[in-house]
Parts: sequence; structure tokens; C-alpha cells
Amino acid sequence: MTDGSGDRARLFGSGLGTSPDDVGVQFLDTTLRDGEQAPGVSLTPEEKARIARALDRAEIDVIEAGSACTGPGERETISRVAELDLDATVTSFARGVQNDIDLALECDVDGIDLVVPASDQHIEDKIGTSHEDNVRSTVELVEYATDHGLWVEVIGEDGSRADLDYLEELMGAALDAGADRVCYADTVGHATPDRTFEAVSRLAALGPTSTHTHDDLGLAVTNVMASLSAGAEMVHGTINGIGERAGNVALEEVAIALDHGYGIETLALEQVYDLAQLIASATGIPLAPNKAVVGENAFTHESGIHTDGTLKDESMYEPYPPEKVGRERRLALGKHAGRAGVKAALDEHDIEVSEDDLAEIVARVKELGERGKRVTDADLLTIAEEVQGRERERRVELLELTAVSGSSVPTASIRLEVDGEEREEAATGTGPVDAAMQAAEAALSHTADAQLESYHVDAITGGHDAIVTVEVEMSRGDDYVTVSASEADITRASVEAMVDAMDRLVASDPEAAIADD
Amino acid sequence: MTDGSGDRARLFGSGLGTSPDDVGVQFLDTTLRDGEQAPGVSLTPEEKARIARALDRAEIDVIEAGSACTGPGERETISRVAELDLDATVTSFARGVQNDIDLALECDVDGIDLVVPASDQHIEDKIGTSHEDNVRSTVELVEYATDHGLWVEVIGEDGSRADLDYLEELMGAALDAGADRVCYADTVGHATPDRTFEAVSRLAALGPTSTHTHDDLGLAVTNVMASLSAGAEMVHGTINGIGERAGNVALEEVAIALDHGYGIETLALEQVYDLAQLIASATGIPLAPNKAVVGENAFTHESGIHTDGTLKDESMYEPYPPEKVGRERRLALGKHAGRAGVKAALDEHDIEVSEDDLAEIVARVKELGERGKRVTDADLLTIAEEVQGRERERRVELLELTAVSGSSVPTASIRLEVDGEEREEAATGTGPVDAAMQAAEAALSHTADAQLESYHVDAITGGHDAIVTVEVEMSRGDDYVTVSASEADITRASVEAMVDAMDRLVASDPEAAIADD
Repeated sequence: MTDGSGDRARLFGSGLGTSPDDVGVQFLDTTLRDGEQAPGVSLTPEEKARIARALDRAEIDVIEAGSACTGPGERETISRVAELDLDATVTSFARGVQNDIDLALECDVDGIDLVVPASDQHIEDKIGTSHEDNVRSTVELVEYATDHGLWVEVIGEDGSRADLDYLEELMGAALDAGADRVCYADTVGHATPDRTFEAVSRLAALGPTSTHTHDDLGLAVTNVMASLSAGAEMVHGTINGIGERAGNVALEEVAIALDHGYGIETLALEQVYDLAQLIASATGIPLAPNKAVVGENAFTHESGIHTDGTLKDESMYEPYPPEKVGRERRLALGKHAGRAGVKAALDEHDIEVSEDDLAEIVARVKELGERGKRVTDADLLTIAEEVQGRERERRVELLELTAVSGSSVPTASIRLEVDGEEREEAATGTGPVDAAMQAAEAALSHTADAQLESYHVDAITGGHDAIVTVEVEMSRGDDYVTVSASEADITRASVEAMVDAMDRLVASDPEAAIADD
Repeated sequence: MTDGSGDRARLFGSGLGTSPDDVGVQFLDTTLRDGEQAPGVSLTPEEKARIARALDRAEIDVIEAGSACTGPGERETISRVAELDLDATVTSFARGVQNDIDLALECDVDGIDLVVPASDQHIEDKIGTSHEDNVRSTVELVEYATDHGLWVEVIGEDGSRADLDYLEELMGAALDAGADRVCYADTVGHATPDRTFEAVSRLAALGPTSTHTHDDLGLAVTNVMASLSAGAEMVHGTINGIGERAGNVALEEVAIALDHGYGIETLALEQVYDLAQLIASATGIPLAPNKAVVGENAFTHESGIHTDGTLKDESMYEPYPPEKVGRERRLALGKHAGRAGVKAALDEHDIEVSEDDLAEIVARVKELGERGKRVTDADLLTIAEEVQGRERERRVELLELTAVSGSSVPTASIRLEVDGEEREEAATGTGPVDAAMQAAEAALSHTADAQLESYHVDAITGGHDAIVTVEVEMSRGDDYVTVSASEADITRASVEAMVDAMDRLVASDPEAAIADD
């Protein structure tokens, strides 16, 4: 039926799971093992325990807690997770040597993920054994582990580069020896979906099969879909897709794709966002703003067309509501702003405008956006005042700021004018930013009902003389305001943003007793 | 052949492109349009021109330079790109109204991407027209545009939620009216690969077809693969996968998957890394370290097994060499370090160790890694000194640092001891960090041959009292050293790291005339 059907053999046939009830997909989460092997990541026993509990709440089926052979510290953390009495099966990674199984047993885990070489390169060059000996030792190790009461999954390392006949022989022998499950591993992220389909089809014909994919080619999710359609029943992956090199498949993406596309339930989706934040913060691996499902911008609409559409009907530019994954929708203003988006933002601050004024405000918002600025609440309110010719006296103004740091205790002093009256405060802190923010808070303490909701620094990529943008969100009762400030001095930017936010919050309330001594 | 073949209809069949020469895949890059619609992004005309030139060098086929209807500033940038005389076809996005086409013509582009509604929701609720009128106006607009000499691609917006019979009718009418190409658009990132395959197959039977995918379900790449196997010949996407919400498909991922998996050439892969860096820096949208192809860690190996394997044979844990995408391999040390990796790192610093000492050094590196630290060169060298019982006197030491900022000119003073002699310098800068680094550079100016190679600040996620980690790399001749320092005070951390790096660089060279006045 297609033009190009000649040499373009079909990669995709018809749908997966027209009868979802028949399809059970389980998840093995390896955030604590493969994820922790990401460069620069090390989790403390407390962090691993906290993440394991969060994974269990999210209804992950199997948690690979670590690799017992790594060292005594690692074994302590694995034992700690094993003792949590989770619903999930808890496993340790083990290389194909008996000592690794013994070390896993010491940690009292439910099972092991036993990795044995599968490709010629890994059998001959890495381990230095023969194909026959590899099968023989795999069988012995599986028997040893099952004899000791362990759930056993056998992973054929580098399976995507293995000879398929040999992979079949090796995995078949493991299943015959009593392994509970075998795993097709695309260890180096080399596989294409058609190759994956072929290999997994052959393994799934032998017994329960998992799939373990990496994202070096950007195909981690694609290869999971291929594996599932070939009969795999379990998916290995990590939250946020962290892991060696380009990482493992991101389980939250597989989960939403299966749920939204095929009605297949896997993990508890409403837990996903908190889980992602927990793991990003514990590992120090930040999420890109455009990361699917859990990135900062995944449910943010800026462009005029999209904002307008979304305001008319939330599903206009969203495949599924953000609440499904524990999040909220956000409308942002910038160079692509349209009337509807700007109007909605003004409504939120109870500002009524004429049609003419609205057109002018939209034009100025777009102009500011075109200068490369993120347009915050404060920017919008200033523009509206100018367009409507409303005079507004600042009630809170920064007069002077001094921050001293280095070898001494970080110290800052601040002088503000609040309703015409000068206020001066000094404070120390953990660093100059902290000291300055403490001083500012002290100077503004009479508005004790205002809260700093969030403090965010843009990634500093430009070297030691880079301009830093600080964005703060403050609240007072039901009023929220975001303000940003850009300076080469992070301390000054932080205080400016905070003072401007405070000024905005009290602007709408002449009774706010900010200068009441 | 598979166990689960009952209701699991096959998603993937056999391979794409067994005969790659027959398959031509083109790329339309929409980084400058859909990418720029990402929240908070605005590119100046200069930035757009620079990116367009880089895209052209990377052999992108079509560059969508913007949306002419957005405003005069946007039209200026589109004109600017159109004037560059690139090999690529330059287009503007245009909504389904004649005025948008006229505005695109003003910019002197080669063609337009004409977007018309395709789904019931977009036709009825968003645009408020009828299915018949929509077809009629699309035909008129295509005729108008081609009459004016434009290359025309018609995008059926929200095509993935459209009635397929209607989509076929609409796109067929567009082709009959003279459109050069039609595009299947998964505007909201809603589609599954099987649905994509079905829709694209029907369109590709009518004429040249593009595919436009979004990553809301993590399926952007999967749906591109499905589209190509269904007969699509052009892929819409962005570099780094930036764009509305979770973004568009990342073209660098599609490119490497097609190249490595199927031998299909698209863009000039060796340009990809520089291109990714340029776009990350211009848009301010950072790349996750685990981003496929272009993320910081995509070719970094830390775990002992992987490092050991990679040192034996580079392809052991890599699907393709990093040089292919303009990058280099990096070995990192941490809690998963093994003997081979540590030995290789010591060799790089010309340090010979006994087998016993090596074992002890490995143990201490792992211990440091287990405390959650990234293990830098400086950490390794300090450990080796301790284990080998080598005494080393610091030659450069920080005695005192004072940085003042706020309302005044950022000023810093520094007191160092260099080979027993005190040195004192002061400097101003754009901010306190810059001032302090300038002062440190002045105090160390007699080692003018040392260079600051890179300065990197970890993402600051913990609020205004967060601990900040600064990592610097310095070089002197052929010697390189990385050092990190963590403090709540970013100024102090920056200077500490720089001073420690300098101390390390001169340690190996007693003749270094660092205290020579």
C-alpha cells in the first residue's frame, strides 16, 4: 500500500495489546544499581533506603538494590534495602562467579540478577573463557543460587551483539537449570528494533523474558516497545533514564506510553513526578527542562496558538492531563504570547484592561520576549501599569547591599526603604547569598505572612564572569508572584528578585503593615 | 514462535532498509521555530543566523527559520536566514490564512510549512470551520503559495488524533493542488507507533510524506522509526530535542540510529556535538548529562567492569566511537572504580605504584566515591601520596580571601603563600567570583604558562543556602589537572579549586618559577 514498500520492510505491524487485560508488563528498576553507576553518582545507605521506599510506593515489581561485590559499604546499603520489608522483590546484581552469589546471600536479598557474557567479544576477550565453559558455569551458578533459595534472573551481557543461536542455547540452559527468568541485554545500546524483536522473540519462546535497553542511539524506548511486542514481560530501566553513558530506558516514559497508548497499567503514575525529583536531587543528575513526563517544561505552554487552544480546551495541546503524573499545567509568557494567554495572566492578578490596552500589553510582552527575556509576573505587571498610565510608587526599594565573604564568616548588610522609612539589617549565613537573603528577610520581617516559595538559579554555563539569572516565587495569602533578576553577582541578583517580589506582593494591599514598627 | 503472540500483535516486523542505498531520508530542522517556542526561549537575529549556518554545515536539508506572523522582529530574523545563501531550503511556518503566506513572502523564504487543522477538535473547536471548508481553503492556499513560487509542505495539525479517512482526503487534496509534500503531525505527542505506521502508510501512498513527532510519551524516536518504515521520507525535529512541552524528536538521535543501525546517512555526524553545544548555550536549555549522543556523560565510563573492558578494547562498552559524533572518551573514577581504571589514571600523571599500593589506592578511591564525592585528579594524587608515604609540601596555599559585592563595584583581595613567600593582590570584576578569580590570577601571574581550561558550576538546586560545587580544569604545557571544591560560598569554592589546581600543576616541576619576582 505504501510507495516505499519495496526495500523498506515493515518495522512496525499492527498494534500492541488490543486486549490489554491479557498483557501483564512488570518493571525491574535498576536506578540503585545501573543508575548509580552513572559517573559521579554515589548514594548513601539512607538515600538508597529512601529511594527504595519511594519505588515501592510507586508499585515497582523488582528493585535491584546494588551490586554486592562492589564493597562493604555497598553491601550495607543492599542489606538495608532488603530489611525494609517492601512489596517489591529485592535483588542484587552478581557477576558469574560463586563469590558474588555468596556476597548477595550475605545481604539477605530475595534474588539475584546474574550477569554472564553472551557475545563472542565478552566471552573471549573480556572473560577469557570458551562458549562451552560459559554455558557449563552458568548452569552451575543457577543451580547454586536456586539451591540457596534465591529468585534468579540470568542476564546475557552484550546479548544484542551475540550470535543468536548461542544466546538461545545459553539462556535455554539457564532456564532448564531452574532460572526464573532470562534477560535480553542491549548492554552497550547498540540494537535496532528489528534485531531486538528477533532476539526477544526467540528467548520468549523458551521462557519468561526481560528486556534491558540503553539509550546510546536514542532507541531505548523503541527497543522496549519492540521487546514487548515480541513477548517480553518485564522491562529493566531507571527513573529519569539515568545510568552508564547515555543511561538506561526511563521507566516513567515506558509507563505513560503503555498507559496512554494501550491501557496497560504498570507503575503508580501519580507518584512519578515526586520520584523523579527525589532521584534527581539524590544523584545530582539534573533533568533537562524538555524531559518527557518529568521535565520542568513538559506541561508548560508559551506559544500564542498553544496557550489560546489550551485555554479553550485543556486537551487541545496535551495528550494527557498533567495531574495524571502528579503535576500541574503552567502557562508562560514570552515572544510567542497571544491575547488569550496575556488576558488569562492579567486576570490572575485581578487586573482589568480594555481591548486596546490589552493589544498594547501583548505587543510589549512579545517585545520583551524577543529580547531573550523570560517574561515574569513582575514584568507583566510593570508593563500593564505603564500602558494603563497607572502611577505606582514602589513601597519596598533596595537602597544598599553589602556582602562580604571569603575567609571570614559570610556577612551581609542591607538598607531598604519601606513606605518611605529606611530599614537596616545585617546577618551572617552559610555563604554570601544566604547571609544577604537572611538580612533581607530580617528587614522585611514585619510582613511575616510572606513566604519564599521557590528559589531557582539558571544553570551557570558561561564561566566565572557569567551573568546569573535568579528566579524567586513568593506568596502572601493567595497571591503568588514570580520575579527574576540577572546580574554577574549572584548575591545581588538574589536580593533584587526577593525585594521586587515583596514590593509586588504588598502593592495590591495598602493595608499591609510592612513599615509598622 | 513467541509465547505471547496471541493478543500481542507484532509491533515490529523485520528490518528497515536492508538495502540502504534505496532509502533516502531527509531532515527538516525546526530548532528555530518549534524549538524556539520552548518556554523562555528567544533567539536574536544574530543567534538565529549563527545556528542556521551551523545547521547548514551539518547538511540539514530544510531549515524552518521561524514563523513570519509572530511579529516584525521575527520577520527580520527569517529574512536574515533567507539571505545567508545556504545549501538548505529555508522555510517559514504559516497558519492557514493568506496573510501568513504574504508575510512569509516578505521574508523571501524558499518555501512554507503551511499548517491546517486535521482533527475534529482542531477544525471545529479551535478554528471553528467545517471539514469541507477546511479542504477548500487548504486547496486555495496551496495554489496561492505555489503561484508565488513557494515550495509548499502542508502539515495536518493534530493529525494523530484525526479521522484517518478525512486526513487522507485533506492531504490528498493538498497534493492535487500542487503541494510538494504533506506532513503527518503528532502535534500533541499522543500517537503510538502502530497508529503512526497506519496513518503514514496511507499518506505515503498519496505522495511525498514527512513526519513530525513530539516526545510527551517518550515515543518521539519510536514514532519516527515507525513513520520511516511506513514510507515517510522526511523527518521534522530539532537539535537536542527542544520544543514545546517535552519537545520534538532529537534529530541527532535519529541520525545516529539510522547511521549505526542501518547505514543510512543523514546529517554530518561529526558536527553534531558542537551544534548541540551552540544550541544549548543560545537557548539556555541545558542538556542532561545522560542525554544520548550529546550529553556530558554519553562517552564517560566509571564502573570498574566497564572501565576495565574499555581499556582492553574500546568497543567493549561502546556501540560506536565518540569521534564519530565529534567527541572524546572519558574515564572517571568513583565508588565503582577498579584496578585497571585507577592504574590508567595514575599512568597519566606519571606515577608508578606497586601492586600492593595500587590495591590500597583503589580501596581509598572507592571509599571516597562511596561518600558521594566525584573523585578528581587532585583527590587521586593526594591519595597516592598518602599511600606511598611521599611527603609533599604545598607550594601554593590560600591564606586569605575577601570578596565584597552588592551595591559597590565587586572587589576581592587575596593573600597566597607561594614557595614560602606571601603574595597579595586585589582586583575588581563583573561579580565577586570574577573579581576573586582575577585577583588569584594576578597573584599567580608568574606562572603565566598555566591556563584555566574550563570552569564548571554544578546545578544549584538546593535553595539559597545550597552547597555549590565548582570544578576547574587547568593546564600547564602537556599537564592537565581537574580539581573540585564544595562550599556554600561560590566565590570561595572557585578560588580554592583554582589555587589547588595551580599547586598540583607546579608540584611535578620544581623548576617552575612561580615565586620569581
